[in-house]
Amino acid sequence: MNERVREILGWYASDNPGTRTNLARLLNHGRLGGTGRLVILPVDQGFEHGPARSFAPNPAGYDPRYHFELALGAGCNAYAAPLGFLEAGAAEFAGEIPLILKLNNSDSLSTAEPCPAVTGSVDDALRLGCVAIGFTIYPGSNLRNTMYEEIRALGEEAKRKGLAVVVWSYPRGSALSKEGETAIDVVSYAAQIACQLSAHVVKVKLPSAHIDQAAAKKAYEKERIPIATLAERVRHVVQSSFNGRRIVIFSGGEAKDTASILDEVRAIRDGGGFGSIIGRNSFQRPRKEAIEFLQTVMDIYAGKSK
Amino acid sequence: MNERVREILGWYASDNPGTRTNLARLLNHGRLGGTGRLVILPVDQGFEHGPARSFAPNPAGYDPRYHFELALGAGCNAYAAPLGFLEAGAAEFAGEIPLILKLNNSDSLSTAEPCPAVTGSVDDALRLGCVAIGFTIYPGSNLRNTMYEEIRALGEEAKRKGLAVVVWSYPRGSALSKEGETAIDVVSYAAQIACQLSAHVVKVKLPSAHIDQAAAKKAYEKERIPIATLAERVRHVVQSSFNGRRIVIFSGGEAKDTASILDEVRAIRDGGGFGSIIGRNSFQRPRKEAIEFLQTVMDIYAGKSK
Amino acid sequence: MNERVREILGWYASDNPGTRTNLARLLNHGRLGGTGRLVILPVDQGFEHGPARSFAPNPAGYDPRYHFELALGAGCNAYAAPLGFLEAGAAEFAGEIPLILKLNNSDSLSTAEPCPAVTGSVDDALRLGCVAIGFTIYPGSNLRNTMYEEIRALGEEAKRKGLAVVVWSYPRGSALSKEGETAIDVVSYAAQIACQLSAHVVKVKLPSAHIDQAAAKKAYEKERIPIATLAERVRHVVQSSFNGRRIVIFSGGEAKDTASILDEVRAIRDGGGFGSIIGRNSFQRPRKEAIEFLQTVMDIYAGKSK
Amino acid sequence: MNERVREILGWYASDNPGTRTNLARLLNHGRLGGTGRLVILPVDQGFEHGPARSFAPNPAGYDPRYHFELALGAGCNAYAAPLGFLEAGAAEFAGEIPLILKLNNSDSLSTAEPCPAVTGSVDDALRLGCVAIGFTIYPGSNLRNTMYEEIRALGEEAKRKGLAVVVWSYPRGSALSKEGETAIDVVSYAAQIACQLSAHVVKVKLPSAHIDQAAAKKAYEKERIPIATLAERVRHVVQSSFNGRRIVIFSGGEAKDTASILDEVRAIRDGGGFGSIIGRNSFQRPRKEAIEFLQTVMDIYAGKSK
Amino acid sequence: MNERVREILGWYASDNPGTRTNLARLLNHGRLGGTGRLVILPVDQGFEHGPARSFAPNPAGYDPRYHFELALGAGCNAYAAPLGFLEAGAAEFAGEIPLILKLNNSDSLSTAEPCPAVTGSVDDALRLGCVAIGFTIYPGSNLRNTMYEEIRALGEEAKRKGLAVVVWSYPRGSALSKEGETAIDVVSYAAQIACQLSAHVVKVKLPSAHIDQAAAKKAYEKERIPIATLAERVRHVVQSSFNGRRIVIFSGGEAKDTASILDEVRAIRDGGGFGSIIGRNSFQRPRKEAIEFLQTVMDIYAGKSK
Repeated sequence: MNERVREILGWYASDNPGTRTNLARLLNHGRLGGTGRLVILPVDQGFEHGPARSFAPNPAGYDPRYHFELALGAGCNAYAAPLGFLEAGAAEFAGEIPLILKLNNSDSLSTAEPCPAVTGSVDDALRLGCVAIGFTIYPGSNLRNTMYEEIRALGEEAKRKGLAVVVWSYPRGSALSKEGETAIDVVSYAAQIACQLSAHVVKVKLPSAHIDQAAAKKAYEKERIPIATLAERVRHVVQSSFNGRRIVIFSGGEAKDTASILDEVRAIRDGGGFGSIIGRNSFQRPRKEAIEFLQTVMDIYAGKSK
Repeated sequence: MNERVREILGWYASDNPGTRTNLARLLNHGRLGGTGRLVILPVDQGFEHGPARSFAPNPAGYDPRYHFELALGAGCNAYAAPLGFLEAGAAEFAGEIPLILKLNNSDSLSTAEPCPAVTGSVDDALRLGCVAIGFTIYPGSNLRNTMYEEIRALGEEAKRKGLAVVVWSYPRGSALSKEGETAIDVVSYAAQIACQLSAHVVKVKLPSAHIDQAAAKKAYEKERIPIATLAERVRHVVQSSFNGRRIVIFSGGEAKDTASILDEVRAIRDGGGFGSIIGRNSFQRPRKEAIEFLQTVMDIYAGKSK
Repeated sequence: MNERVREILGWYASDNPGTRTNLARLLNHGRLGGTGRLVILPVDQGFEHGPARSFAPNPAGYDPRYHFELALGAGCNAYAAPLGFLEAGAAEFAGEIPLILKLNNSDSLSTAEPCPAVTGSVDDALRLGCVAIGFTIYPGSNLRNTMYEEIRALGEEAKRKGLAVVVWSYPRGSALSKEGETAIDVVSYAAQIACQLSAHVVKVKLPSAHIDQAAAKKAYEKERIPIATLAERVRHVVQSSFNGRRIVIFSGGEAKDTASILDEVRAIRDGGGFGSIIGRNSFQRPRKEAIEFLQTVMDIYAGKSK
Repeated sequence: MNERVREILGWYASDNPGTRTNLARLLNHGRLGGTGRLVILPVDQGFEHGPARSFAPNPAGYDPRYHFELALGAGCNAYAAPLGFLEAGAAEFAGEIPLILKLNNSDSLSTAEPCPAVTGSVDDALRLGCVAIGFTIYPGSNLRNTMYEEIRALGEEAKRKGLAVVVWSYPRGSALSKEGETAIDVVSYAAQIACQLSAHVVKVKLPSAHIDQAAAKKAYEKERIPIATLAERVRHVVQSSFNGRRIVIFSGGEAKDTASILDEVRAIRDGGGFGSIIGRNSFQRPRKEAIEFLQTVMDIYAGKSK
Repeated sequence: MNERVREILGWYASDNPGTRTNLARLLNHGRLGGTGRLVILPVDQGFEHGPARSFAPNPAGYDPRYHFELALGAGCNAYAAPLGFLEAGAAEFAGEIPLILKLNNSDSLSTAEPCPAVTGSVDDALRLGCVAIGFTIYPGSNLRNTMYEEIRALGEEAKRKGLAVVVWSYPRGSALSKEGETAIDVVSYAAQIACQLSAHVVKVKLPSAHIDQAAAKKAYEKERIPIATLAERVRHVVQSSFNGRRIVIFSGGEAKDTASILDEVRAIRDGGGFGSIIGRNSFQRPRKEAIEFLQTVMDIYAGKSK
């Protein structure tokens, strides 16, 4: 066991050895195995955005097996997806790559206040051989308490059964403006909430330099918290996640040009972030290009490349 | 075991042998047994539309035994109905035809946001000797999460107990216009959602060429997804269902003239659809005519007829 | 065992012998025992309308024992009441008359969307020696799904434990006008829903010739369904109840003059209805008059009187 | 409700109305209905003695339906049998005659210390529509506590679910000589034990005048308990059963000549016994003869015949 | 549905439609499908006798898939085996042949009083897609009650969940001599016990003309029960199984020469037995020979061959 991984596992000493074993499996798999950094492939966009918007740019992605193969081919630490996509490949790829079962999902056909449906169970995660459950919360939604209470119960069950808990924390809902959703104060707050809800791994969006909440603005200004550069903002989010004692990873967000993404990755690395979770920017490219891209990202995290 | 059936069962390798056995029973029964195509008789209209609208055109259909006999006489793969209709014949017809117990149903006497009531249990399905549970979801309803979470729990239980899961995915509700309910992007999305909710068999309505969602429209146009003909649209729905690795069948919809339906069936066949679920267009005809009609449909699927 | 009773029991072949035994007890008791016809005394008006409205016209009815004695004295097939009324007499009258425990009840002190409270359990029915549970649904209420799901669960439990299930199906709620509640299409639909929810015995109100739902109106007119006379309408409701393969009985409704009620009874008999459930029109009369009245009703059903 | 039946039910005032309803069904059925006397047909000999010893004398009895018909034809109060025999006719004869499910049974192929196996459940009794469970205890067996504790649990459950409890109390086992098994002190003691175990109905063998237990002998002699005639001994057993406030019936025992049995029945009647449970002496005769015989027995109990 | 199969299903009218469906599957599968006769392949000898004694004569049988293929190739009605053997092929052969999960098994490494261990569950049977559970009882063992009580509980659960119950009833244990184990009185008694324990299908060994129990001997002699020929003895066993209203099949027993076995099969057929369950005599032969042999057996049952 690598020293860095051992150190990270040390942060989770209240968890049972089963959960720590699964965290170790997550940290030790793939090209970044043992570095303490992670690149995860998530594919829940079929549910969240619909099939054409998700897979038409690279139609190979309509096939659930494609994403297992992509994650494996690129050497990702894990592959995360909803129940249907995991069930459609878990037997064929059993034991090949750590799996994260996304336990809630939201479609975009409804106009109701955002709140995903719970679409899988901890027992599903066990029977599919997953290392972790994944769960999305929307701080800022009027239904946030529903989500917080669901992850409380699911997280408790997952931990009792030796699984790790990954929380996607995405500020959203009637209490927030579009700009507020990625404001540095809001993203840091969202990371803190996920940690307090006892996530082992937290996933947030990269924050902007905007400060959204009046009360927060005063604190940021008074204490002169450095948030000018992206690396500084990443550092602040990591600090907000129990001073770096929780694994925090960042999402790539919408598809964009490669250079921009790589710059973001460097900022995450330099700011002490633990890695990336990259969906559309990987599986919507042709397979060969996607693998090269993901491996470039990994090389940046591993320090093999600038 | 026919090679095509074996291939289809191979898509469900995460499921236990009990569930695969029941899928095999569904695929191997009736005149289309072994072809990988299905024609299913569903009779939930008594509950959904009321008795007179459903059965007055052919009053023999008031009797629950009539539909067992019709499905048997025509050589359908299965008969699907709510608890009351199945209980009223399951003992007399035990072992004669695969049964699907529709676990939720919606009447049309209410004006509330659409959401069916759960009207049966997985244990009811076992005690009645069914091969599968059936469940309806309404993507687009503000109550969609209720349905998604109900099928999550019922589906998990059904799979543990060796049953198959058939999901009727009908976009409907305050977020959708009437035209949107059958738009190609919405129907494909509905099929994807059912697959991600881990249905084994998905039933959708035949889609129109209309594209409803602005975000989807961009993707369809940019990627030039072919949706001009009905066969192309069927192909796109099948692709949206895990690239054809889930069984997708199409409903006949409202009663219409025979020639139109047969044209639709040809389009389903040519687009790679797995079959039809035909209710009103079969049981509202006189029995002899209904059997001839259903067998013509089967012949088209079997390639015996154009 | 009378041939007609045996024939009726044959419709319930999916049920266990315990449930069939209790159906037989219901059909074989009282002056109509063995005829396949039933007259049941229901007394839930104390809960539903309040004591003064219910019992002041004949104050003997304030005493729960009165109704046991009335049902016995008149030779009814069964006595149906809420938990309190049954508990107040079940020991004293143990074994004297089949009892039906009404498991939900609604008071008239609230103006909320109609939905009765569940006020008893299947185990209560067992410990009180009942032959059946009774349950009210309100199709047309926005809370209909609550009721449908409650009876689903209670009915499954009752059947497993060998009891019969009687459903009062009363259209009511914000989706229906007062006139719509007794419209022939709506009453037939309500009977169908109760059957699909797998009731053994269905109770509805006598329908008017009004057709309420636009979509239904087309079907009634196109198929020329005969609904001009009350007997024709009863026949249509019975047909709508699995073509007469479920026991359908009719309520007397509001107190009215004797001649009108007897005319209604003749129409029920001539239309193939299975009997009456008569509350206010019996227990609000003086005992002697009530018994004479009920026995006249029974004589009409038995063919002993026109 | 007959006064005598009402009086008997009064002895069971601690029981719930469900149990009392089922006791009433038992007491009110058949030719002795309402007299407070019972003749029950028990057929567990297939299990207890083997098929040839039981049914070869009258091969019609191999068919489980025969015994339902015999009990019905003769007008018995009830038919008692193990699970297999009841299941083989309960649907066909649903509602025709009160059933008692014998919940434990012992075969005669083993030489172990006598202790029947539990072969049915209280829920089986409910689903088959029984009025009571039956259970055998062997006071005198070293395994008696096993049986006492089983009936404690089963009896508690049966009473909660509204069923009656019938206990066959047959002294047997290594602590008793053959002669001791029917000694008056031992049989009276066995009846008392069954009552103390809270049976509603107790079945014992007819006692001899022999006194088996030294300690008992002293009491019988000192108090000059009259046990010279069979009627006196019956009276003493009834007295030993809560002074006649529990229903005690007597078994016919081995097949013997008719005159002897009728003499025994007269003694039971004259001693205040409640009736007979007659197996081999009825079903091993040809049907016509058996019915005549059973009806003669009933006539003696009813006082229609000497 | 064949008339004979419908007649047989009619004997199980107390069972739910699910159980009847699975009985129909058993009766309708294979070359004897629809005849009311059955040939079942059982392979529990690996557990019961050890691998070399079982599979060395035909080493292909070491592979669990071999037996699925053999049963399929020969056209048997079903294949019965312990959990391990079924799990090793149930996925690959899902839906190809009815499976019976043997829920208890006994090894031959112990000298304790015979009593198999429970080695599978009803839920295992569901998840493996079985039509029935199998269970062995040893009447004559001092541990018989343990077995009787286990099958009581497992049978109740299996029936509630819609499965059929097959009981292997093999007299054995300290109360019986070797000769007694196959004595006609003992085998008939064992069949009766299995039926009373409410088995749907009973399997016994072919009986000898020996009468073992003194009490039984008197009955056989007095009633002149014909047991001279094997066909007569089969007829008596069938009669002892609820007068032929339960399915009784006979085991082939030890490997022996083909002509003897075929003679036995003719006797089973002529005596009204329902079929054979043939293990060692089939799977210990080379595959081709085994299939020819099994099909000859089936031809005798089907009346195609003498």
